[in-house]
Amino acid sequence: GCGRVSHDFAQALKHVPTATVAAVAARSSDSAKAFADKHGVSTSYGSYDELIADENVDIVYVGNITSLRRKIGEKCLLGNKHVLLEKPFACSADDAKYLIGLAKERNLFLMEGMWTRFFPAIEQARRAVFGDGKDQKGVIGEVVMVQSDFNFNASDSEVYPTSPVYKHDQGGGSTFLVAPYPIAAALLFFKGAEPDKIAAVGQMDHNTGVDLQATVALSFPATSNISPALDDSNTDENTPKLPGAGVASLSFGLFGESVEETVVIGTKGRLTVCSPAHCPTKVIVIKKATGRGEVGEKIEYEFPLPADTDEIEKAGGYNYPNSAGFAYEAAAVARCIDKGWIECPQNTLSDTMNSMKLIDEIKAQLGVKPLRGD
Amino acid sequence: GCGRVSHDFAQALKHVPTATVAAVAARSSDSAKAFADKHGVSTSYGSYDELIADENVDIVYVGNITSLRRKIGEKCLLGNKHVLLEKPFACSADDAKYLIGLAKERNLFLMEGMWTRFFPAIEQARRAVFGDGKDQKGVIGEVVMVQSDFNFNASDSEVYPTSPVYKHDQGGGSTFLVAPYPIAAALLFFKGAEPDKIAAVGQMDHNTGVDLQATVALSFPATSNISPALDDSNTDENTPKLPGAGVASLSFGLFGESVEETVVIGTKGRLTVCSPAHCPTKVIVIKKATGRGEVGEKIEYEFPLPADTDEIEKAGGYNYPNSAGFAYEAAAVARCIDKGWIECPQNTLSDTMNSMKLIDEIKAQLGVKPLRGD
Repeated sequence: GCGRVSHDFAQALKHVPTATVAAVAARSSDSAKAFADKHGVSTSYGSYDELIADENVDIVYVGNITSLRRKIGEKCLLGNKHVLLEKPFACSADDAKYLIGLAKERNLFLMEGMWTRFFPAIEQARRAVFGDGKDQKGVIGEVVMVQSDFNFNASDSEVYPTSPVYKHDQGGGSTFLVAPYPIAAALLFFKGAEPDKIAAVGQMDHNTGVDLQATVALSFPATSNISPALDDSNTDENTPKLPGAGVASLSFGLFGESVEETVVIGTKGRLTVCSPAHCPTKVIVIKKATGRGEVGEKIEYEFPLPADTDEIEKAGGYNYPNSAGFAYEAAAVARCIDKGWIECPQNTLSDTMNSMKLIDEIKAQLGVKPLRGD
Repeated sequence: GCGRVSHDFAQALKHVPTATVAAVAARSSDSAKAFADKHGVSTSYGSYDELIADENVDIVYVGNITSLRRKIGEKCLLGNKHVLLEKPFACSADDAKYLIGLAKERNLFLMEGMWTRFFPAIEQARRAVFGDGKDQKGVIGEVVMVQSDFNFNASDSEVYPTSPVYKHDQGGGSTFLVAPYPIAAALLFFKGAEPDKIAAVGQMDHNTGVDLQATVALSFPATSNISPALDDSNTDENTPKLPGAGVASLSFGLFGESVEETVVIGTKGRLTVCSPAHCPTKVIVIKKATGRGEVGEKIEYEFPLPADTDEIEKAGGYNYPNSAGFAYEAAAVARCIDKGWIECPQNTLSDTMNSMKLIDEIKAQLGVKPLRGD
């Protein structure tokens, strides 16, 4: 696809020396040609089949409308291409499972484009919460709650009801469009666990059949058999224990501008992924001090995005905030493929399945009719 | 009661010229006497019955443990005293209904001590969101979402499991202790509407039978028969309409320090009741600008608390943050009683019933055994 997100992705790739755009495709050869010219790509196609047949293409980035993810993803995998599918990965967990099965069967790399997970700010957040996996432990104690929101006001950029944002059969609605981000935050900071309870309430648009906004409560189960408060071995604090268990409070919608933060609350401190949390450049850690409400050490981490090059400026900059950050995702994908991996450790296919199952359940609870991808 | 909250309340009353503490009571006459001495109160009693029999007492402030609210509230009302009952108002909606019925029957003033509603910052937030009721309209458009949280780390101040915070039969647990605040925020900014959907998930302490933390999703129904997106009369924005409908995303708990903010998202802007949102002194309004994510005018309102007087300092200051703000509530109650009102317009008995029904439902969904007050 040669839309607004694909444009931003192509721009960001200019920061990644290991990546070359071999060819682009769109449903119209004119728009593919225009896109290729703008980005200095030598080859363009008016069909996805031609692109897939091109032997110079190793991996296909699929950035067009949600309802086409299954069909184009399938085509690419059957054509022996690695695939990076934008989020949401598919229209349903069934579609996602099908694509993942196909990729594993054919030993091809497949990933959902949850770019947030690759921002250095998020990598730092992981280290702060979980430690570095060796000596260093996390600094905010046991994670007990994750709060994450992403609401934007669609009224400026999306014409109602003609925009794809409001088209049920194209994959519109707030759960497909924005929920993947707060969901990813919950899954990340509860270490990829599957929630044992999911409750969603929100507002449907009865006119178009899509959901407009919602809030979702998730509960994550304990990771050990120790019941809360029964961990007698741990007596260094006057507090019961929740080994791995906790809640996530998520909200998303198309009506207003939220703060758009992710807050991770731990027993020994709090971490904030600052706004815009879906493409963050800043993380703040606040360690608990003695005394209720007292704040101890406050540590701010900033990770500025790469500055625009002349080449990027000439091609018109970006459509969306912090899109240069696509470079982090693209570089990670390139490293995976170089190593012969078919899955990315920062963003596994299990993470994607977990997210898709949640999306299915949220949509069902909100009353959105299920959708099978083309 | 002569506990920590009652101390703070008595301190704040020193800012209210229309209020005099006529007498204090506790279960022990020694602690009542000590409390009275500290606060310069001439009369103290070792039983609530004596206090209620005192003809100099017009209104009783009940600040002791939750499980006693019903019994002491009942005693006061039967003794023809007006009553201000701390939050949570009662152990169940049934208990609340009983007390409210009794007050109405006897034409006595009754209110839940939801002091947050009386802070000038909240009065300003009401005006910003709803207008002044005459010419001036609210400035953030239609309210579509309310986010509110209150989590504190109990490990410093409440010994586990002996503190009343963890005692089921005394009204412990996070829903009784902290949830009334985020619930009040949702009810306030959805104009006292009753939610049509309530979903709560959280963690129980199986050892003590109380809930430790939770997140709650509420849906509020449309206030007119116009379905979302079908309001053809309103065509000035490319967005569907939600006449009065929306969601609230609430979370609360005893494990960690949250940001403790209330955020009200409207179609034309956002209002933040800054931390500590349960006793706020600052509100920020951000008006939407043209363009996604663009911020227009930002207005900050600050309302400093009254400074401590010598008298207040001598009696040892306050136990909790911003407790001087009890003065706003006390002054409003005094005005109501002076006017012969039996209900307070900023904090109606309908608001209290609404909150209690929500608390009942949340506790049931979390698996907390119902509790009838003594």
